Amino acid sequence: MKIEIRQAQKQDMKYVLELIKELAIFEREPYAVVIKSEDLIQHGFGNKPLFSCFVAVTNNLISGMCLGYPRYSTWKGPTMHLEDLIVTKSQRGKGIGFALFKHFINFSNKKGVRRIEWAVLDWNIDAINFYKNNGAYVSREWQIAQMDESAIKTFISKNENI
Amino acid sequence: MKIEIRQAQKQDMKYVLELIKELAIFEREPYAVVIKSEDLIQHGFGNKPLFSCFVAVTNNLISGMCLGYPRYSTWKGPTMHLEDLIVTKSQRGKGIGFALFKHFINFSNKKGVRRIEWAVLDWNIDAINFYKNNGAYVSREWQIAQMDESAIKTFISKNENI
Repeated sequence: MKIEIRQAQKQDMKYVLELIKELAIFEREPYAVVIKSEDLIQHGFGNKPLFSCFVAVTNNLISGMCLGYPRYSTWKGPTMHLEDLIVTKSQRGKGIGFALFKHFINFSNKKGVRRIEWAVLDWNIDAINFYKNNGAYVSREWQIAQMDESAIKTFISKNENI
Repeated sequence: MKIEIRQAQKQDMKYVLELIKELAIFEREPYAVVIKSEDLIQHGFGNKPLFSCFVAVTNNLISGMCLGYPRYSTWKGPTMHLEDLIVTKSQRGKGIGFALFKHFINFSNKKGVRRIEWAVLDWNIDAINFYKNNGAYVSREWQIAQMDESAIKTFISKNENI
């Protein structure tokens, strides 16, 4: 089976969104996806694209995607973040995920970054083993903190007069 | 004591670097900082700044800083990442950290993001409590995976013929 990895185009975004939703279900957050394919087109293909996206094509179908963007480390300088690496369930175990991962590492390396980073769920043992087998370090020490839209608004209204 | 929060200037970067190094020592990684103040100037003040930085000034001295940049969520759209929030040890407990945090939340909110995110070490209980008290959710489920420069080069040389 031939695996082609190519840069995503605007017209791929509806399939990319399907993959994003498939991953959200797998990650037990089916209602977390509020983004629409028009948003992905607007954010990824304007004058200042907010991300780079690549799709895997097998048998003329989009079977996977990876999406990432630059970040910055105050220890290392410019870095890259891999936000998503998704292969549709029926096509797993065929090397598509590895091909996408390899493409993203090469893409990032060409940018000269000193680090590539991403997040993985602690119960996703298959993914953790895949990353470790490919030389990644998975830290248990760092925790991710988040304020969502409602937490941001609450914080601001609570503290506006301080 | 008056706390002034203002946008960092090029000439502040040598003090910002001192704060970065102070945090790296606190985070038990004193040798992890390879960046120089000239790098911070180049990366933060060019045509395409890679980050936004704010400093806290108290008694005419820079006593703290925060630094962040845009990220992208395939669930929510544009987000902001708070990379560092640092107050020098002698000036802690005076509300400087809160003033910087509040400034960054307001700054991010004005950009219309649906999420603000950052990382915190699991043994840094004071920081975790501070964030939780201000409405943040601290996840124990997500792990951070990283490939450093040497892991990137090793991966590429191992897989270049696949």
